[in-house]
Amino acid sequence: MTFQLKILGNNSAIPAHDRNQTSQLLQLDSQYILIDCGEGTQLQLARQNIRLGRIRTILISHLHGDHYFGLIGLISTMHLFHRKHKLTVFAPPDLEKILELQLKASETELSFPLKFVSLNHDGLKEIHKEEQFAVHAFPLEHGIQCYGFLIKENPKQWRINKEKLPKDILIREIVKLKSGNSVLHEDGTEKYPLKEYALPPRPSRSYAYCSDTRYNEEIIPYVKQVDLLYHEATFTDEMEDRAALTHHSTATQAATIAKKAGVRKLLLGHYSTRYKDPSPLQVEARKLFKETYLTHEGETICLKE
Amino acid sequence: MTFQLKILGNNSAIPAHDRNQTSQLLQLDSQYILIDCGEGTQLQLARQNIRLGRIRTILISHLHGDHYFGLIGLISTMHLFHRKHKLTVFAPPDLEKILELQLKASETELSFPLKFVSLNHDGLKEIHKEEQFAVHAFPLEHGIQCYGFLIKENPKQWRINKEKLPKDILIREIVKLKSGNSVLHEDGTEKYPLKEYALPPRPSRSYAYCSDTRYNEEIIPYVKQVDLLYHEATFTDEMEDRAALTHHSTATQAATIAKKAGVRKLLLGHYSTRYKDPSPLQVEARKLFKETYLTHEGETICLKE
Repeated sequence: MTFQLKILGNNSAIPAHDRNQTSQLLQLDSQYILIDCGEGTQLQLARQNIRLGRIRTILISHLHGDHYFGLIGLISTMHLFHRKHKLTVFAPPDLEKILELQLKASETELSFPLKFVSLNHDGLKEIHKEEQFAVHAFPLEHGIQCYGFLIKENPKQWRINKEKLPKDILIREIVKLKSGNSVLHEDGTEKYPLKEYALPPRPSRSYAYCSDTRYNEEIIPYVKQVDLLYHEATFTDEMEDRAALTHHSTATQAATIAKKAGVRKLLLGHYSTRYKDPSPLQVEARKLFKETYLTHEGETICLKE
Repeated sequence: MTFQLKILGNNSAIPAHDRNQTSQLLQLDSQYILIDCGEGTQLQLARQNIRLGRIRTILISHLHGDHYFGLIGLISTMHLFHRKHKLTVFAPPDLEKILELQLKASETELSFPLKFVSLNHDGLKEIHKEEQFAVHAFPLEHGIQCYGFLIKENPKQWRINKEKLPKDILIREIVKLKSGNSVLHEDGTEKYPLKEYALPPRPSRSYAYCSDTRYNEEIIPYVKQVDLLYHEATFTDEMEDRAALTHHSTATQAATIAKKAGVRKLLLGHYSTRYKDPSPLQVEARKLFKETYLTHEGETICLKE
C-alpha cells in the first residue's frame, strides 16, 4: 500500500515567503486524507495535480483560520466539479455551524453528501476506520480546542513463504496461515506450522500529526514509535517564552517529544513568519534528535514498507 | 485626487488559468476601498505591495464564495498586524453572523473596531459618504441578494481663474467664488462675477461595479454616464441560455448596458473558466460598444480629472 505525505503549506498565521498556511495530504493506497486546510489550499492541490475526488476524508485540527479558512472554498469547488462521493470532515464542533451558515447564505445544496463529525473527547480515540488503516485523534494544548491525529495501518496478514509452498495446499489453508494460525490435521497435530510456512506480517506504518501545540509530554504515549512524526516548531529556542505564551513549540521542544517517544523520523513545520529561512529550526532540533527534517512545500515523504 | 482601480482577480467560480476570484481595489486619494474578496485576495494584495492599513472600507456584493471567502483571512491578517483603524464592511446581512461565528470559534478579539453594515434595500441608496466621495449600492439580479456599487466623487468647487485674480481679493471672497457664487458689493451689484473670475468645477468622476448579474435594464439609470463601468461578462453570446440560467451575463449584454447607459468606458470580468483566453468576450462586446476592455490581474486603470 502506498503510504506517503505531501506538504501543501507550512507557514504559521499568514502566508509569507512563498509559504502557504498549514495543509498536508496523506495518500493511503488510492485515497487521500487532507489534514488541515489553510486559505488557498485548493490552489496548492491544483498545482500538485491532485484529483479532488480522491479526497474522502478531511481532518481539521482546530479553528484558527490558518488551519481551516480554505475548507469552504475547497468544498465549493468540489461542488462545482459535480462531486458525487461522500466527504467526511472531522473537526471541532463549531465548524459545522460555520459551514452550514456559509452554504445557507449562498443557497447551495451540495452535489455530494457532506458528513460532519465533531471532535470532542479526551485521550486517544479511534475516529475513523477503513479496511487498511485507522485514524485516531488526541487533544493538544493550544488555548482553544485542538487535536492531533495518528494514522496507522491496520495489523497486516502473515505472508506465505513461497519457497515452502506445498503444491497441494488448499485455499482455506492459505487463509488460515495468513491470519496467523498453523494448519492442523484432524487429530490436532500440525500439518503446516505457521512459522515454517509463513513469514511474520510486515510492520504497520504510522504517521502522527501534531498541529499547533504547546510543549506537552502527555502526547508522548499517543505518538510512541511512529514512523513519522510531524510536530509544529514555530520558534527557535531563544523564543521559548513567546512559544509558551502563544501555545506553540520551539524546535528543541519538538525534538524532545520525538526523542522521548522514540519515533523514527521528525518533520518540522508551522514556521513563524520571522524565519525567512527556517534552517536554524532544523539545526537546533538535530542537536537532540538527528532524524529531524524541515518540511518543504510540494515535497512528498514516502513511508516504505 | 487620485481615482484609480486595481484588478486583483477576475475569474468566476474557481481560481483557474492563473486568474483569481473576484476582487478589486479602488484608490480614492490616499485610502482604499476593497470591492469583493475571493479566496486568496490577501495574497494578491501582498503581491501588489498594498498597505492593508489603508483599506478603510470593504464592499461585498453577495455571498457566493468566490466573492467573499477571502474576507475572514484578510481580517485575521489585519488583526495579526495589530491594525488599529476602524474597518467598515458593507455586505448582505448573513455575512455578519458568519464572521461573528468564525471570530468566536478562534476566540479572537480583533485589535481594531470592525463595523458591519447590512445591505438590505431596493433602488439606489447612498450607503457611505466621505469628504471627497460617496458610495451608493443598488440591487442586481443574481438569484440571491446581490448589490452593485456606484462610487462617485462629490461635486467639486469652482476653480479660481488665476489670470484674473485681483491682488486685493479677500479670502472670504475666494471662498465665495469657489462655492459657486459671485462676490457682491454691499449694494448688491456684482464685484467679482462668478463666470468671469472662476472656472466651472471639474466633472465628478464615477465608477460603477456590477458584480454578478443577469441582464437587467433596471440598473441603467443607476450607472448612467459613469466614467468607468465594470460589468460581469461570464459568457460569450452562444452561451446566452446558460447565462440566463445561472443569473449571469454575456459580453454583448454587458455592452448593451454600457451603451444604453452612455458610459465612457466598459470593463469586463468574471470570466468563465471555460475561457482560457477571454479575448472573444472583448471582440463580441466591441461590436456594440467600442470602448470595451478586458480586465487583467494586477493592472491599474486611472480615471483622470
